[in-house]
Amino acid sequence: MRARDLASSEYPTVGMETSVMAAARLLAGENLPGLVVLDDQRRPVTVLPGTQVLRLAVPRYCQDDPALARVVDEPHADALLRGLADRTVRQALPEQPRELPIVAPDALVLEVAALMARARSPLVAVVDDAGVLTGVITLDALLDRMLAS
Amino acid sequence: MRARDLASSEYPTVGMETSVMAAARLLAGENLPGLVVLDDQRRPVTVLPGTQVLRLAVPRYCQDDPALARVVDEPHADALLRGLADRTVRQALPEQPRELPIVAPDALVLEVAALMARARSPLVAVVDDAGVLTGVITLDALLDRMLAS
Repeated sequence: MRARDLASSEYPTVGMETSVMAAARLLAGENLPGLVVLDDQRRPVTVLPGTQVLRLAVPRYCQDDPALARVVDEPHADALLRGLADRTVRQALPEQPRELPIVAPDALVLEVAALMARARSPLVAVVDDAGVLTGVITLDALLDRMLAS
Repeated sequence: MRARDLASSEYPTVGMETSVMAAARLLAGENLPGLVVLDDQRRPVTVLPGTQVLRLAVPRYCQDDPALARVVDEPHADALLRGLADRTVRQALPEQPRELPIVAPDALVLEVAALMARARSPLVAVVDDAGVLTGVITLDALLDRMLAS
């Protein structure tokens, strides 16, 4: 059992110029655990767990101090969200890049599991020698396979 | 729109004496984003994102250095997993507790979103004044509601 056997080649991806709103809608609409962001050559730039996609949409001052979120009234919160429609993933990504959870197609199941646990990522991207995406492994697919044995 | 309006009272929970294997099976079988661990009084002890449930099942030495996972052969990996059937959530939890993502029933949507983003938790537990669980808010339910406005 290798990474290539666990990966789906149908998993939806987004680009750096995708709007944050479109990314959030994809995540919610397809009930995805996270998103893989690709560059123009279809190489993963970053893999965002769902909570980190949410982070792109929540104002920084509310993240740092949730108490502040309490004093933002609801109409204001709606306006903040609407304002994100024109913001791209590139503009919203944190400056400090996350560890990129990628594996080669021949990685073992335990290796994939260890990477997911350490990187706290419910998604791992499988890439070829050129770094191009060949498939995506979800936590759910991995657990199903681990528990079936 | 308040936390109580976003929460599900049907979300499955586990106890401290639940086996790690049962917890992993619940997560995978119901396709859950994570698990809420309750004490005997149904107060949340911890909220585990899916990746952290996986962490309970992956040997520590593999998490710290995924390269080591490469040298564990597959039959050995299967044996490691089977050995977890008798281990409880209590025994597997990290000593350093995570921030507990809980809110009061009247918390606002933006407050819940900020907490999820900061705690990196796709689940937030809603608790009453006594700290007893009244419902669980998933990232998916939150995004659906935020994007519907």
